[in-house]
Amino acid sequence: MSKYWSPIVHRLTPYVPGEQPKMMQLIKLNTNENPYPPSPKVLAALEAEASGQLKLYPDPNADLLKQAIADYYQVSPQSVFVGNGSDEVLAHTFCGLLKHDRPILFPDITYSFYPVFCQLYEIESTIIPLTEDFKIRVDDYLQPNGGIIFPNPNAPTGCLLPLDEIARLAANTDAVVVIDEAYVDFGGETAIQLIDQFPNLLIIQTFSKARSLAGLRVGFAVGNPVLIEGLERVKNSFNSYPLGRLAIAGAVAAFADRAYFEKTRDAVIASREWLTQQLESLGFTVLPSAANFVFARHPQRDAPELAAALRERRIIVRHFKQPRIDQFLRISVGNDEECQALVAALQEIVALVPSA
Amino acid sequence: MSKYWSPIVHRLTPYVPGEQPKMMQLIKLNTNENPYPPSPKVLAALEAEASGQLKLYPDPNADLLKQAIADYYQVSPQSVFVGNGSDEVLAHTFCGLLKHDRPILFPDITYSFYPVFCQLYEIESTIIPLTEDFKIRVDDYLQPNGGIIFPNPNAPTGCLLPLDEIARLAANTDAVVVIDEAYVDFGGETAIQLIDQFPNLLIIQTFSKARSLAGLRVGFAVGNPVLIEGLERVKNSFNSYPLGRLAIAGAVAAFADRAYFEKTRDAVIASREWLTQQLESLGFTVLPSAANFVFARHPQRDAPELAAALRERRIIVRHFKQPRIDQFLRISVGNDEECQALVAALQEIVALVPSA
Repeated sequence: MSKYWSPIVHRLTPYVPGEQPKMMQLIKLNTNENPYPPSPKVLAALEAEASGQLKLYPDPNADLLKQAIADYYQVSPQSVFVGNGSDEVLAHTFCGLLKHDRPILFPDITYSFYPVFCQLYEIESTIIPLTEDFKIRVDDYLQPNGGIIFPNPNAPTGCLLPLDEIARLAANTDAVVVIDEAYVDFGGETAIQLIDQFPNLLIIQTFSKARSLAGLRVGFAVGNPVLIEGLERVKNSFNSYPLGRLAIAGAVAAFADRAYFEKTRDAVIASREWLTQQLESLGFTVLPSAANFVFARHPQRDAPELAAALRERRIIVRHFKQPRIDQFLRISVGNDEECQALVAALQEIVALVPSA
Repeated sequence: MSKYWSPIVHRLTPYVPGEQPKMMQLIKLNTNENPYPPSPKVLAALEAEASGQLKLYPDPNADLLKQAIADYYQVSPQSVFVGNGSDEVLAHTFCGLLKHDRPILFPDITYSFYPVFCQLYEIESTIIPLTEDFKIRVDDYLQPNGGIIFPNPNAPTGCLLPLDEIARLAANTDAVVVIDEAYVDFGGETAIQLIDQFPNLLIIQTFSKARSLAGLRVGFAVGNPVLIEGLERVKNSFNSYPLGRLAIAGAVAAFADRAYFEKTRDAVIASREWLTQQLESLGFTVLPSAANFVFARHPQRDAPELAAALRERRIIVRHFKQPRIDQFLRISVGNDEECQALVAALQEIVALVPSA
């Protein structure tokens, strides 16, 4: 605490991201990164862009990238907003579209950055519990509100809300409905196709998951141009050039290589299905996942103890010390070798006599 | 305007950066980029980092970069904050350190993003006019305030305030004093050496000017660890990973190549001195510049007309349509060839009969 801090700073409880350990030779299944590297065409584009031109500012509007995204989803470039990772896009969304007189709504179990954004921008929220089987029930959100936001598939559950339910929600809400589709490529259908129908619908996506570019920091939003203009006004009051030349070039190349994207995405999906079966055969309950992670609990084993035992074997997964889900582990889907190592380790751990 | 926008969005007047023209074969002297490319060692570091590892998130704390900056300036890494360009660092500074009951103070002629940040974060400000010869007079700032911020050298004037005056200001101010040193390497001494004396002093710098990396987007702040902690709390409530793997690797390499930095900086300074002489011999009044640009007016020629005539010759400079300085042009220092082309064009233009 310091008299030099603005009063708001004293009230913040910052977000804590999943650990990025500096030790080597870990199997890192804790932050839902893609087990496959980015497309070779992305790396080639980055190398080409690592030139003397880096002395010049990037295009503040990143028009090339907006066009690439617009072409891919068959929307207009005026429907696309880009930012420095989807967290920045989310932050501008909270600031620019979700701060109204009424509280915003989001689930009790969801991306834990949302309440942090609410603190930063002093936005009131009402927390809506998921159902007992960890689903979002649209009827629970049909109440006066200043905006609605949740991931689809939800995190850390992996559960998917069908597109017709999103349409029903947008149709019956006066405020902005934000669908955070960080994981949608692994098992859902994007709601981008609904934006022409619903001027209050904003879809946010990232290059960090299905595009294998968590290290590059690019995210984007798609919605009605009026919503996008609101975001641009905030962005241009915050940072003119959030995306550097390398980020723009790499992201454009990632969208261009559709074949590579589909191949690696399908491999992750196949691994998820295999991993789910294996975990179930070890006695785990696994929520149905449409993402690149599974959310699982073992009825006889304490989740923090399981996580610690995995860590001893140099495998890192994520545990959330939070009501309702503190007996679950969130496990990112690795490549074949990593999935096999995880299953082998769990076989060993589960076979041991419980420590308590 | 839209009912979906948060009320604050309606009140914003976003910052407008200098044009990044997409036409080719321009002489671009409008956004104070470095005329020299980044160090070859930076490009090599970027190529090495453009690897499969981009699938993984970067270090959210960018410890390697903080250490490189700390080593360079002989401060502790806990005194260093890094962000996605100095604009992001400035934004977090306004939010986290400059929002208090009393208004903040900054000059009437200065970086025009400051009033925009004030709008975004709803911070009151009192504007302090520069002296008649466009200098900052410290005594004018010795009044109750919620914080003070200005660039040193100031932009767009290029005028430098000596270090002992900054010390006098920090010593006589209760709130945070922010010195925005985007251009300091071209002719000033950094106030970083004063941070141990003054717990309220924050210095902000950028990789976009003297380090030739405007296209990479990296900026940083140095100050007492308590100030830095305030910035970290805001940053971690906004975006966990503002710097990607490439930005971190490139910035570290830029600080490592001191010889290249000194060589290109000295070349810019020499060009600035030559350009100043040439402009003066054409009848221009040129403010004494400690930056990589000059701020000049011609007593007989209208500045917007000069800018238009240069543009016809494919040379772009910056004109600010703003009281007190609307007869000045801000001209970035180019390489030898660019400076010569500029002088030749101005010789031609000034020799013509004025259009009015």
